[in-house]
Amino acid sequence: MNLADVARRAGVSSATASRALSDHPHVAVATRERVWQAARELEYVASPDATGLARGTTGRVAVVVPHLARWWFGAALEGLSGALRAAGLDLLLYRLGDAEARQAFFDELPARRRVDAVVLLGFGVDERERERLDRIGVGIVAAGTRVGSHPSVSIDEYAAGRQAMDHLLHLGHRRIGMIAAADPELDLAQPAGRSTAYHAALADAGIEPDPDLTVTVTWSPESGARAMSELLGLADPPTAVYAHSDEIALGALRTLRRAGYRVPEDVSVIGIDDHPLAAITDLSTVAQPAAEQGELAAGTVIAGLAGEPVDPLVTVPTRLVIRGTSGRPPGRRGAS
Amino acid sequence: MNLADVARRAGVSSATASRALSDHPHVAVATRERVWQAARELEYVASPDATGLARGTTGRVAVVVPHLARWWFGAALEGLSGALRAAGLDLLLYRLGDAEARQAFFDELPARRRVDAVVLLGFGVDERERERLDRIGVGIVAAGTRVGSHPSVSIDEYAAGRQAMDHLLHLGHRRIGMIAAADPELDLAQPAGRSTAYHAALADAGIEPDPDLTVTVTWSPESGARAMSELLGLADPPTAVYAHSDEIALGALRTLRRAGYRVPEDVSVIGIDDHPLAAITDLSTVAQPAAEQGELAAGTVIAGLAGEPVDPLVTVPTRLVIRGTSGRPPGRRGAS
Repeated sequence: MNLADVARRAGVSSATASRALSDHPHVAVATRERVWQAARELEYVASPDATGLARGTTGRVAVVVPHLARWWFGAALEGLSGALRAAGLDLLLYRLGDAEARQAFFDELPARRRVDAVVLLGFGVDERERERLDRIGVGIVAAGTRVGSHPSVSIDEYAAGRQAMDHLLHLGHRRIGMIAAADPELDLAQPAGRSTAYHAALADAGIEPDPDLTVTVTWSPESGARAMSELLGLADPPTAVYAHSDEIALGALRTLRRAGYRVPEDVSVIGIDDHPLAAITDLSTVAQPAAEQGELAAGTVIAGLAGEPVDPLVTVPTRLVIRGTSGRPPGRRGAS
Repeated sequence: MNLADVARRAGVSSATASRALSDHPHVAVATRERVWQAARELEYVASPDATGLARGTTGRVAVVVPHLARWWFGAALEGLSGALRAAGLDLLLYRLGDAEARQAFFDELPARRRVDAVVLLGFGVDERERERLDRIGVGIVAAGTRVGSHPSVSIDEYAAGRQAMDHLLHLGHRRIGMIAAADPELDLAQPAGRSTAYHAALADAGIEPDPDLTVTVTWSPESGARAMSELLGLADPPTAVYAHSDEIALGALRTLRRAGYRVPEDVSVIGIDDHPLAAITDLSTVAQPAAEQGELAAGTVIAGLAGEPVDPLVTVPTRLVIRGTSGRPPGRRGAS
């Protein structure tokens, strides 16, 4: 059972199937669903040969990260490091720097060959980088993202976004803003699913999307604060805001409180992550288990090195966590 | 005591002993255990000759961390990884697990000999661990803490605490609580300076310390929230609280706001760190540059490997950052 079988069953080309399975942004939602459905029905499992994972000899695994100071990366690395250590594998850490350092890293990787496997943590790669990765002759595993047809462990970005959006819609909100996150330098295959979910949820609710209600910023609390100012400056501001991350949502909350808006009486806010400070700031969110994604990626590496079959698409569940920042829209409070 | 002695005691060839000690994947688990047991019993220390490694020739630096998901550790590791990479050194990451895993790590370290230097990030070691470190024959550098007479890079914990306490005292507070942080399993040489500063500042201001005003908790927002409840339950609650970290201070703020206290009108709060979320939550704090501590520790490693003189005690400055959570005590507002 290989990628071609999945593609055939889904009625798409292998290239499209590969893109769909890696959440490539240019794949239509319906196509993506069909490919995933086919993969599930066929219980598609990549063979060690297909994934390039073969028993290694250096006893080291390279872990490549774009950031370390942001919560998700630290937590995922914590899970990953524990599981690799338990298996007696050393962890070589590579942090990507600026665009130039990044290019150098991927250029040098195939010649490097000092590790048995490479784990990519929380960032996408472009075609050129993917081609370099394919040449290094050791297994590649992605966590928190999908990279080509390499085995990956991640949440379903689209499903997470729908959990947040559907919660706001169920509360009765119709005018919902989105603070989308992007890192042009690093997130080359960024969680398009989180944005797709916004538009699909609005469409399902029969709401015409208003482009003014979407602001795209970088992944930081400060960006969230600025984006919220922008949304509040609209002639008709949103009654609820869906942020792509908790850090961004916490920034948005700051602007709302400074401006004297009550949360959630005047404006509701929801994020994604369940950052350690979300509970303490009473932020409604969609929880994703970051450490678990790291652990499962380590498990995939270990299985691959042992020549065992590897599940190419591990999806860890997300969970809506309703706290104090989401409520009914103004004028609908007390309504059933 | 050499590799041949270890091999003889374990009943294996020297080649097998060498492979077992370097965690080579093709060694049976039982054999590996037997060799490591023999190495521990003989207190075997790998010599450069035995492993074929001369000083500074592996191109790898071990970085040992107790946590990864907490801000300081991620940020310090980010600075460290960038500087090591720029020097062409690989970073081997070891995260300490529970007490047993920690003991195993330090027991096995001297026989391991697969790195040119070891950086200890943000935790203290006990006498036994220090003795093991001294035997491995490569440079040890500490960041965010001091470890024996090994070179270290850190803040002045006492000075940081004084900046926070003196700020509260200058505002006119006399009844000041402290939420102290401790991790009994990991912080063996924990920032006693932060607590010393509290008592010294009170003494300098002629204030008799009240033991009820000090609560010691673990490093988490939830702990800070609980500690604040405890302080609010006193017959005479504090008008200001000095927390050992921003994460703890943010937890304390949550309790205050839930209980209807105004910050800083009723109670002032200050932390230490300048966590990325401190600015966005308007938290007064004492800023410490975490990434810079990692970078400078890498610089010390690189200088040491180059045979250059090394500054054994690098202290990076901290800085009082006054934001919206610290103000005059009730009844003194408007006083000059």
